[in-house]
Amino acid sequence: MKSLKSLLPFTLFCLSLLMINDSIAQSSKSNGAQTFEKYIDANQDAHLKEFLELISIPSISSIPANKPDVQRAAVWIVNKLKSIGISNAQVIPTAGQPAVFGSWENAPGKPTVLIYAHYDVQPVKESEWIIPPFAPQIKDGKIFGRGASDDKSGVMMSIWAVEAMLKTNGKLPVNVKFIFEGEEEAGSPNFKNMAMANKALLKADFGLNADGGQYDENTPEILMSLRGTAAMEFSIKTADIDAHSGQFGGKTLNSALIMSQIISSLYTKEGNVAVAGFYDKVIPPTAKEKAMMQKVPYNKEEDRKILGSTAETGDTTYSALERIWYRPTLEIIGMQSGYTAAEGHSNIIPGNAMARITCRLVNNQDPAEIQDLIVKHVNSHLPTGATASFKFTRGKGGASPMKFPSDTKEYKYVSDVLEKVYGRQPIQVGTGGSIGSLISVKDILGIYMYSMGLEQSDEKWHASNEFFKVSSVRKGQILYCNYFEHLAEEEGKLKK
Amino acid sequence: MKSLKSLLPFTLFCLSLLMINDSIAQSSKSNGAQTFEKYIDANQDAHLKEFLELISIPSISSIPANKPDVQRAAVWIVNKLKSIGISNAQVIPTAGQPAVFGSWENAPGKPTVLIYAHYDVQPVKESEWIIPPFAPQIKDGKIFGRGASDDKSGVMMSIWAVEAMLKTNGKLPVNVKFIFEGEEEAGSPNFKNMAMANKALLKADFGLNADGGQYDENTPEILMSLRGTAAMEFSIKTADIDAHSGQFGGKTLNSALIMSQIISSLYTKEGNVAVAGFYDKVIPPTAKEKAMMQKVPYNKEEDRKILGSTAETGDTTYSALERIWYRPTLEIIGMQSGYTAAEGHSNIIPGNAMARITCRLVNNQDPAEIQDLIVKHVNSHLPTGATASFKFTRGKGGASPMKFPSDTKEYKYVSDVLEKVYGRQPIQVGTGGSIGSLISVKDILGIYMYSMGLEQSDEKWHASNEFFKVSSVRKGQILYCNYFEHLAEEEGKLKK
Repeated sequence: MKSLKSLLPFTLFCLSLLMINDSIAQSSKSNGAQTFEKYIDANQDAHLKEFLELISIPSISSIPANKPDVQRAAVWIVNKLKSIGISNAQVIPTAGQPAVFGSWENAPGKPTVLIYAHYDVQPVKESEWIIPPFAPQIKDGKIFGRGASDDKSGVMMSIWAVEAMLKTNGKLPVNVKFIFEGEEEAGSPNFKNMAMANKALLKADFGLNADGGQYDENTPEILMSLRGTAAMEFSIKTADIDAHSGQFGGKTLNSALIMSQIISSLYTKEGNVAVAGFYDKVIPPTAKEKAMMQKVPYNKEEDRKILGSTAETGDTTYSALERIWYRPTLEIIGMQSGYTAAEGHSNIIPGNAMARITCRLVNNQDPAEIQDLIVKHVNSHLPTGATASFKFTRGKGGASPMKFPSDTKEYKYVSDVLEKVYGRQPIQVGTGGSIGSLISVKDILGIYMYSMGLEQSDEKWHASNEFFKVSSVRKGQILYCNYFEHLAEEEGKLKK
Repeated sequence: MKSLKSLLPFTLFCLSLLMINDSIAQSSKSNGAQTFEKYIDANQDAHLKEFLELISIPSISSIPANKPDVQRAAVWIVNKLKSIGISNAQVIPTAGQPAVFGSWENAPGKPTVLIYAHYDVQPVKESEWIIPPFAPQIKDGKIFGRGASDDKSGVMMSIWAVEAMLKTNGKLPVNVKFIFEGEEEAGSPNFKNMAMANKALLKADFGLNADGGQYDENTPEILMSLRGTAAMEFSIKTADIDAHSGQFGGKTLNSALIMSQIISSLYTKEGNVAVAGFYDKVIPPTAKEKAMMQKVPYNKEEDRKILGSTAETGDTTYSALERIWYRPTLEIIGMQSGYTAAEGHSNIIPGNAMARITCRLVNNQDPAEIQDLIVKHVNSHLPTGATASFKFTRGKGGASPMKFPSDTKEYKYVSDVLEKVYGRQPIQVGTGGSIGSLISVKDILGIYMYSMGLEQSDEKWHASNEFFKVSSVRKGQILYCNYFEHLAEEEGKLKK
């Protein structure tokens, strides 16, 4: 999951870094004997070293050849948990990639927090990286490597926070459970079943999603909505074999051209999705959500700098934030046809073309229903002589959209801690991203997992040269330690 | 070069095979003591063995990593030529891949024939092959392997014909020169310079292009026109990096979509090319050419069977033959964007997309001019925020279209021999393919290279599972031997 945040220019960035560290130090000190802070500072080098070790494991969940690596990463995390005193740490097998569980439950009568993160990562296009993506390096205050930000940062920040408290106080103020997923980047196809089968083990009073972000280094955020997701692949076939472009050029269908025409047909001139029925279940944002968007200091110029893009797209009768948070999308995430190796040249009319689609969904849109609409659209746009086939490699369906309430004590505790650590109130944001497992947790365990993570929107999640800011390593631990303390204190008051 | 031919059903194919062999045997026998025929029959196994050896060398001219293989294939051919008594056989270096030259010039006062073929091959998509493409095998009367038909068959048929005559008679009735190109499949970028620099060495009275075909196993053909060619690659860039599809989906341009829209814009609804000026230099077929097309027993259903395609394309106000022979084309031969590895799934909005184009050109169309028109079209169809870049990996320009006259004695000799060997007059055909080197030979050496080859249109040139028919191995040699004899006889008469 990633939320939308603006990127501050570098100078402001450095300045704010100093201010924030200052504000954390002050706020922490004001809270009595914060010995965990000393531990965190004293162990930063050792932590960075083990962080690089975890990032170096290519735990790409969607590539079968990497299955042993995903397994290895899971075992690495189990060993780390055991080393800090989580003696029951274990790998939980699923039909796909394993999850990792561990808990510290020696605070009887205190609330239990379940922390979610994922240790699997996206594939890489190695040639585009400035360093090998699984040989992480620290440069200019940034930890480069696949998964550094999304979401091995979430795994490690939360573990280190527990480590800091256990090593300094020998105990935690609340009970803590970890559930680290191994296939979030593959669409969480087995999380729901795993959670159902381990309902008792995962039972908790509160939930936190460590795969979350900060709006910027000065500004905390609370995530109020996630889009859902549906993915699929389709192929267009025009011939059994590729044709010689001289022998057949002028009289046989070209699958690359037909694919291009079908992709073009998926959109209106205004940049909306042209698939019939696609928007049927979309509900406009509520007054509250509109007000929330108004308060977000969104700067589209800063935003574009992250990608180096110079224009926005989509139907501009909706604001950029509304398009990202409350409007669904259909994106071509990959397409291939003919001979495309970097070297060589093959004069053929391709008989086959392939494209992959990801939709981000909102409100009541149903992933399986949307997939069906797309299949129908493609089939109805095929010219005579072309056929289409469809693959749902991650299963039919996908993740449903999700919203979080802001009138709960769970919300308030997260907000309080963010305000304390950052020195200012969090802003409410939506996100265009999806985390299917958060919905499963709500459905099965009945708890909302508010996001509490340190990722920032310029950190190139899913893209080449992903990184995580060194400055966030400390802040993440401080944040979680403060949350545990605040939760114990507030819930303690309620019991009295 | 490949000409257009129909594919006969398999039963007819088998029947005709027997008939043809019969007719060759008869026509040859009637020509006095054809001892070369016995040699050809006695050596078929040995020849097939060495044919497989040559095919097994992956001489892919357009892939730099295969440069040593191309070199190895050239040396292999030089050694073969030496082994049959062509003592001056040699590799001729060029700025790219080498050519192979060899000559037998011990028939003073007799005409000299220059035979062209190419020993380089197209790239392969190995996963689509029923055998490894460079581990050739004979199955069901077919020699499978990359280059078996296009054009290692041309190289070997002509060498074996000379071998058969030299081994049986100790001499040839005419002087013969071979020029085998090593980069026809890369657009012959250095052939012209090589021919200029070796004008004296290549000097000849007659020319034959061994990269030619039969209409079907019963029907000989003479090639009257070739289309020209122009190739290029272009990339669309919308961002410096790929974007997270949740974080940015709805507000940033998708390069795969824009590429699809631009590709779609290259065509009209009728299936013509929409690039302004593209058809400006196209002249309709002459009355003679129209009459020629009428005589070709073209069967579009048979033709489609080769590809397994079920519909034709293009502007059907032109006949299929006219579209292939006298109308230019623009084909997308490859396109790629985003994450497309067979395994894995990457939820990104691609910042880059790439497509490759090959045009087949006619009449006075100039390859460089056509490339400029396409660049202009793409640039004028870019939306704000997208940029395009262009690559002319095979150099700016390409091969020009070419026509062959039918009122020359050179034409008559080829026609005579085809009629004798096949037992029927050749039909005149055009081709949609291109061979840039034939134009260079005409321009520099002043001779037309009429095509005399055994390739058939179902042999999957450039595609996966290319093959050459075993039955053509014998016929090709007989054809060349008869041509040498006929040429000596006819030219001898003229001298008297």
